Amino acid sequence: MIDDKMKKYDKIVKNAAGREVPTIINGEEHIPYQGVGKYKPTGKKYAPPIPTCADYPADGNKTVSNLKEVLIKAGLKDGMTISTHHHFRNGDLIANQIFDIAKELGVKDLRWYPSASFPCHEHLIPYLEDGTINRIEGSMNGPLGKFASEGKMKGLGVLRSHGGRYQAVQDGEVVIDIAVIAAPTADAFGNANGVDGPAACGLLGFALADSQYAHKVIVVTDNLVPFPAIPWQIHGNYVDYVVKVDKVGLPEKIISGTTKITKSPDRLLIAEMTAKFCDAAGLIYDGFSYQAGAGGTALSIGNYFGDILRERGWKARFIRAGSNKYPVQMLEEGLVDYILDGQTFDLEGVRSMRENPGHVNTSPFTSYNYHSKGNFASMIDIVVLGATEVDVNFNANVVTHSDGYLLHGIGGWQNCLFAKTVILPIPLFRDRMPVILDKVTTLCGPGELIDVIVTERGIAINPKRTDLLEKVKDSGLPIRTIEELKEEAERICGVPEKPVLSDEIIAVIKWVDGTVIDSVRRVI
Amino acid sequence: MIDDKMKKYDKIVKNAAGREVPTIINGEEHIPYQGVGKYKPTGKKYAPPIPTCADYPADGNKTVSNLKEVLIKAGLKDGMTISTHHHFRNGDLIANQIFDIAKELGVKDLRWYPSASFPCHEHLIPYLEDGTINRIEGSMNGPLGKFASEGKMKGLGVLRSHGGRYQAVQDGEVVIDIAVIAAPTADAFGNANGVDGPAACGLLGFALADSQYAHKVIVVTDNLVPFPAIPWQIHGNYVDYVVKVDKVGLPEKIISGTTKITKSPDRLLIAEMTAKFCDAAGLIYDGFSYQAGAGGTALSIGNYFGDILRERGWKARFIRAGSNKYPVQMLEEGLVDYILDGQTFDLEGVRSMRENPGHVNTSPFTSYNYHSKGNFASMIDIVVLGATEVDVNFNANVVTHSDGYLLHGIGGWQNCLFAKTVILPIPLFRDRMPVILDKVTTLCGPGELIDVIVTERGIAINPKRTDLLEKVKDSGLPIRTIEELKEEAERICGVPEKPVLSDEIIAVIKWVDGTVIDSVRRVI
Repeated sequence: MIDDKMKKYDKIVKNAAGREVPTIINGEEHIPYQGVGKYKPTGKKYAPPIPTCADYPADGNKTVSNLKEVLIKAGLKDGMTISTHHHFRNGDLIANQIFDIAKELGVKDLRWYPSASFPCHEHLIPYLEDGTINRIEGSMNGPLGKFASEGKMKGLGVLRSHGGRYQAVQDGEVVIDIAVIAAPTADAFGNANGVDGPAACGLLGFALADSQYAHKVIVVTDNLVPFPAIPWQIHGNYVDYVVKVDKVGLPEKIISGTTKITKSPDRLLIAEMTAKFCDAAGLIYDGFSYQAGAGGTALSIGNYFGDILRERGWKARFIRAGSNKYPVQMLEEGLVDYILDGQTFDLEGVRSMRENPGHVNTSPFTSYNYHSKGNFASMIDIVVLGATEVDVNFNANVVTHSDGYLLHGIGGWQNCLFAKTVILPIPLFRDRMPVILDKVTTLCGPGELIDVIVTERGIAINPKRTDLLEKVKDSGLPIRTIEELKEEAERICGVPEKPVLSDEIIAVIKWVDGTVIDSVRRVI
Repeated sequence: MIDDKMKKYDKIVKNAAGREVPTIINGEEHIPYQGVGKYKPTGKKYAPPIPTCADYPADGNKTVSNLKEVLIKAGLKDGMTISTHHHFRNGDLIANQIFDIAKELGVKDLRWYPSASFPCHEHLIPYLEDGTINRIEGSMNGPLGKFASEGKMKGLGVLRSHGGRYQAVQDGEVVIDIAVIAAPTADAFGNANGVDGPAACGLLGFALADSQYAHKVIVVTDNLVPFPAIPWQIHGNYVDYVVKVDKVGLPEKIISGTTKITKSPDRLLIAEMTAKFCDAAGLIYDGFSYQAGAGGTALSIGNYFGDILRERGWKARFIRAGSNKYPVQMLEEGLVDYILDGQTFDLEGVRSMRENPGHVNTSPFTSYNYHSKGNFASMIDIVVLGATEVDVNFNANVVTHSDGYLLHGIGGWQNCLFAKTVILPIPLFRDRMPVILDKVTTLCGPGELIDVIVTERGIAINPKRTDLLEKVKDSGLPIRTIEELKEEAERICGVPEKPVLSDEIIAVIKWVDGTVIDSVRRVI
């Protein structure tokens, strides 16, 4: 229900990136993007109410018999903000149940604040249609993104990076009424972790902000152990209730189809060129660090890095990962001191996290929150990221396809742009659509933070990075300007048509500091 | 300088325990004690200013060359609150240097907010005299307590338990301007731990609240390692500056003289009777938990518990510890699943913490903070504590001696009173002064939370604990009323004279919820 007080969006301005964005979003004021590092917050962190042990059971037993009862106890009512997390990725079983219960109870106008939504949440479309859920603020992968793109969501979607999600909660931009944390292992006090139990999925860092700041925090588990559940990645001291269910998630579904080394010759070439570029530019050294991500190309790049380390007797200081079997192999082989885990992409990663002290649990607070006294994203030597589109100013898009559909989340992508060298290894075209354009459909990452584009037909270096240009000038690598790469793609595929989009805004993209960097338009 | 606006204390009322306490303390309003679990906070947690990564170095290097420079950078000025922590116990080298610098800079009226002060801080007495330091809010062990007791401190002392210290910071009752965290290992970003490095002292949990809420956070270390310093018990994301010094602390001085098993026959008898009582009362079972503390008697009790477990093939679920060689032996022998460490009492404890994953870092947040959604202190089966005095209503004193001198800190003592069964094993008299009195000199712990007094001449059970009375009635143990024990002591030593104290208040004792439970008077 969007009443007069709560306009879906209003007061559109042109932000510092030249993008038109609303400054009233779902009835609340937001700040337009002002440039990288330009917006300085002046307020105070969100201050949740002070609880007292006098209101909690002395024996630490916070169990409640089922999800419905606990949502009633937590005071579920119209207009609340409910959060869930995507550590089970497409194997989440809890979010759908929460909104089934909300529907059953006749609760309306909820804001769903997931750390990400997946195709398994298509089940929620009827609730988005009937007003049980007003809107999703969070990444929308697949069907929910399509639903939003078609202008069907009642409220305006708000997409935030993982770090931006933490920032929004910390800063009080989003006040979570009820956080529901699905946990593979917990004790009755609410201490919880993701490494033990039948549904072990890795780690629970996405839920950290919620546990610290939400008014009511519910831990749901299928593996209730005697106090203390160790490691206690979520502290029971923040938790109100604990619910035991039969099955909390499907850990086998944390495996993404993209967590396999690519077999595509073009992509293998891109991976090899990326690794060679990093080496030629002197970015790989004894003690370096990198984040390669989970895509097939990225995994191959990690393997090339491993080969270089092995050959020279070097060691990486850390890999920033979603752990899967490839970085785990490197850890076990002694090619790296630490894996800093943000999420977990296969069950080998989960096993290793349980067994190997070289894994370090991270959270969007330690890794990505821009409103803190630094975070470690900016300390990583090399970050390899994907993109759906890049423009000639190195601006990049990661959420919409060339047809305008909002089909991907931001994840940690924006946060990672602060790394020392950011490389986008991308094909020059996909389905005969060039990837390098004059202007990206949706601006997610400002070009000034993107250093290198590696394609199967050449490497473009951001002119800002004169140091890199100098280093690789005699490397024999196919260094091109980004315009040259664009022209080459257009010679092959023709100049692409722009997607025809409505003026209507269906979602906004937040920058890491909470400002609005772009709007997403309805697909016609 | 106590000006008109900042009265040392004022507006004395009688609190719910019948004790006269000021409600204006150092110019600020405080709430008198209202009874256990009676005061319900209605406010919000303290909200520190929102920082931004834009103001911190992207490469994560926050090092500043020395302590003086960093204190100037942090904006040290008159009237500020400066915090330090006692994980080096009597081997702290940093606090004295901070105030040497403050003196050199001519800064006045500082509030020193240590988690505890030790005899090594006697060095600071001239600064308390000349007004560099206005007052100490924190435990005062030894010389500083004597100084305060003699009415020489300019401001009023405020003593808080470890949990109360966290609560005061979290609730905004104490706003820390500059926190200085001495760390045996840190990286340039400020991640820090206490288990590695030449000054390894165990853990840094006392500094957690300060890192989360202080306006400026300084990490001082003598062991700077490449990012990431793992474990990162203190998160660099909360840290402003890092300083490298030659020597950050004397880890050999974390060993207290009391961390040796007692050889006194009377104390051994008390220890044995305590263990027998726990067994007879059914408090020891497969999966039980206990906290025995570091005193000689307490350590012997732990050994008796170990014998019982070994004999019956049982295992404790956890020991709450300051780790030292005795609980470490039990962990290594497999007599306990986990040690939940709050501080560390010897270097065997430090070694084991580094090597054995059965150790769990805790902090006053997880263990003791009363203004949270529960804490684990109330979930411990048996807690064994000391006391300087107990009265016939089981009220106990842990800070002042029978001569009225304030010579001990509260530590976690008040917080531990919430355990399922609280036992005070104490001698019936010390230096011919009876320990059981009609009324304790200073009320630190309400009698309703204290269950059992074990002396060498008999055991008194709080009449509230009819369950315990019933369980041990046929045990053959010497169960007495507390009045009988008091009479016996008086038969031997005579009725003790009360200390002659001035009406002047020199310090107050906070209860775990931030209310004022008692006042400490000047010694004449």
